[in-house]
Amino acid sequence: MKENIQKPIWFSNNDVVCAIDQRMLPHEFRVFELGTVDDIIFALKTMVVRGAPLIGLTGAWGVYVAVFTAPVSEDREQHIISECLRIKNARPTAINLAWAVDMCLEAVLQENRPDGQIARAKEMALRVDDYESENCRKIGVNGLDIIKKISESKNGGTVNVLTHCNAGWLACIAHGTATAPIYAAHDAGIDVHVWVDETRPLNQGSRLTAWELGKHGVKHTVIADNTGGHLMQHGMVDLVIVGTDRTTRTGDVANKIGTYLKALAANDNGIPFYVALPSSTFDWAITDGIRDIPIEERNPDEIRYVQGLNEGRIMTVLVPPENSPAVDYAFDVTPARLVTGFITENGVCGASEDEILSLFPDKGNKL
Amino acid sequence: MKENIQKPIWFSNNDVVCAIDQRMLPHEFRVFELGTVDDIIFALKTMVVRGAPLIGLTGAWGVYVAVFTAPVSEDREQHIISECLRIKNARPTAINLAWAVDMCLEAVLQENRPDGQIARAKEMALRVDDYESENCRKIGVNGLDIIKKISESKNGGTVNVLTHCNAGWLACIAHGTATAPIYAAHDAGIDVHVWVDETRPLNQGSRLTAWELGKHGVKHTVIADNTGGHLMQHGMVDLVIVGTDRTTRTGDVANKIGTYLKALAANDNGIPFYVALPSSTFDWAITDGIRDIPIEERNPDEIRYVQGLNEGRIMTVLVPPENSPAVDYAFDVTPARLVTGFITENGVCGASEDEILSLFPDKGNKL
Repeated sequence: MKENIQKPIWFSNNDVVCAIDQRMLPHEFRVFELGTVDDIIFALKTMVVRGAPLIGLTGAWGVYVAVFTAPVSEDREQHIISECLRIKNARPTAINLAWAVDMCLEAVLQENRPDGQIARAKEMALRVDDYESENCRKIGVNGLDIIKKISESKNGGTVNVLTHCNAGWLACIAHGTATAPIYAAHDAGIDVHVWVDETRPLNQGSRLTAWELGKHGVKHTVIADNTGGHLMQHGMVDLVIVGTDRTTRTGDVANKIGTYLKALAANDNGIPFYVALPSSTFDWAITDGIRDIPIEERNPDEIRYVQGLNEGRIMTVLVPPENSPAVDYAFDVTPARLVTGFITENGVCGASEDEILSLFPDKGNKL
Repeated sequence: MKENIQKPIWFSNNDVVCAIDQRMLPHEFRVFELGTVDDIIFALKTMVVRGAPLIGLTGAWGVYVAVFTAPVSEDREQHIISECLRIKNARPTAINLAWAVDMCLEAVLQENRPDGQIARAKEMALRVDDYESENCRKIGVNGLDIIKKISESKNGGTVNVLTHCNAGWLACIAHGTATAPIYAAHDAGIDVHVWVDETRPLNQGSRLTAWELGKHGVKHTVIADNTGGHLMQHGMVDLVIVGTDRTTRTGDVANKIGTYLKALAANDNGIPFYVALPSSTFDWAITDGIRDIPIEERNPDEIRYVQGLNEGRIMTVLVPPENSPAVDYAFDVTPARLVTGFITENGVCGASEDEILSLFPDKGNKL
C-alpha cells in the first residue's frame, strides 16, 4: 500500500512507468507497471487508467515506452511510428490520446539518435504531466468563483454539486477537472456536498470519485444514476459539474454515458450545468458531436457483471439471466444547447463556438 | 423448481398464500409462504413481491391472512382493522396497496361471523387477482395497436421498445402492464425488440424483465440505465412504455426512479412515451404529483451492495468505499407534459385530466 501517491501515473525511481490500477479501487490499492507497449495498450483498453487527460498522459508515456523498447536498427523509426499508431487506436473517444501521442511522436522524430529520442520522449511526457496538472489547478481557480457565488446566494448554506463518473485527479493527473472547483471550494472553507452518480456500468463514481472525495474529507453521497432528476426536481442540486472526453469547437460534449440525461434534467429544472475541461480535450476539427464523435462500444460483460468486495475478496457477480444479451455504449453526447458553460484553464465561457474560440483564439492546446 | 407457475402470487392447494420470491430471480426460483401478517409485511418491505398491481393484490391477500389469523374474541374486528393498517403502511408510493386493502377490509367488515369473514376475504383477493389480470389483458389489446402502427410505418422492420424497471406479469399478476402490449405484439408475429434498462439499484430490469422476456422468447438487450438517451439520439428507440406506481388524475406519473430521465430524453428526441396502467393505479384525490406523491426512501445498502451470481451462489458485493454514505430514493415523478399517453384497460388517452376522466367518468377503479 502506497496510498500517499497522489498522481495516477508516474515515472518511478527505478525508471519504470507506473500507474494506480484503477480497476481495483476503492477496495485495493495496487500499482501497475507499464514496461511494454502491450502493457500500455492493455492498461488503456481494460481501464487500469481512464479519464481523458490521463488517457492522454498514458499515451505520452506510451510514446516513451515505444521509443525505449524500439530496436536500434534501420527500421527503428518506422517501428516507433507503428507502435504509436497502435497506442492511439487503443481507445476511440477521448481526443486527448491522439493529441498527446501525435505531439510527443513529432518531438521524438526530431531527434536522430536513440538516446536523444528517449530523453526527448521522457521530457515530453513530463511536460504533458505538468501541463495537465497546471491546467487542472487553473480550472479549480476559475470554477471556484461559480461555487462561491452560489454559497453566497445561500448565505453560506451547503452547496450541493452533482457529478457523473470520475473527473477527479485519478482521471486528470492532479486536482481533477470536474472536481477541481469542488476541492478548491472545500479548501477555501465553503460548505460543499457532492452527489456522486455511481456511474454504471463500471461505477467510476461510487468506486473512484467517492474514494477521492472521502480521502480529501469532502462531504458526499453516492446515488444511483437514476436519482439526479428527482433530486433536481426537489431543489436538492445547486449545480452540476462533469468532465468530458471530447468536446467539439461548437460545444457538444462527449462524456460518460448518462451525462446527456443529467443535462436534460438540469435544463428542465433551471440548474446550471457546467463542463470542466483542459483545452487538450477540445476537438477543433469537428462541429457536430452527435454525428462525428466516435462512441466506444465495450464488452457487454461490463453490464452483466458487477465487481465489488465480498468477505474481503474482490469478485464479480452476474446480475441478469446468463443468456440475456447486453450492450455497452461507454459515452454519449450532450448537445451544446444544454450546457451552461465550460470551465477551462483560460477561464469560463458559454457553450458556443464564438465564446470557446474567444478563450482559445489560436485553438491553444499546445504545451 | 416450479417454473411453470405464471402468477407471482397464488392460493396453494394447501390453503397457503404463496409468492415467487422475486429477490432471488433470475438465478433461483424460490417460493415464499405468506402465513402471517408479519410475513405479508416482510414480503412487501423487502420486495419479495413488488410492482404496483402485485403490491395491491398482496395487500388483498394480507387482509385474508389478517382475518384468518385474527383471534375469535370481542376485539377481533379492531384487531383486523389495525393489522390492515399495518399492511397499508408497509410501502408508501404504490396507491394500489391502500386501494386493495381498504376495499377488501370494507367487504370483510360487512360479515359478522369469522367463517363468513374468511370466505369473503378470500373471495375478494381472488376477485382482485381476476380484475388485475383482466385489466392487463385489455392493456395488451389496447397497446398492441400502437406497436402495430409503428411496425407498419417501418414496413415490418423491428420495433424497438425501451422499458424501465419491471412492469411485467411478475409485477402485475398476468401479462404485465408495460409488457402486455409487447407480449401481444410478439404473439401477433410483430418483430419487436426490447431495450431493458437494468434499473438500479435493485436491477428489476436486468433481473426480472430480462427473465420474463427471455422465457417468452421476446428479443431483448439489457442496458445500463444511462444508455437510453444515447439510443434515442441515434434512432434506436421507437417507443418507450413504462408502468407506474401511482398516477394523479392530472397525469403525473410516479414510477421507479429514473423514469423521469427517460421521459425527458424521449421528449427531446420526439419519441412517444407511454405509461401503461390499470385504473387501480390512478390516485383520483391528487393533482400535483411532484408535490403530493410520497416517495419512498429505502435502505442505502441497496445502493452500496449489488446482488448476483458467483460460482453458483447468490451473493452481494460492496461497490463504493465502506465509509461512503449513500441515499436510496425508490421513485420519481414524471410530469404529465412529458407523457404521450396512457394505455389502460378502458383504452388509450392523452395525459390530461379531461382525457383521463373521459375514459373513467366514474373514476372507475371499483371491482
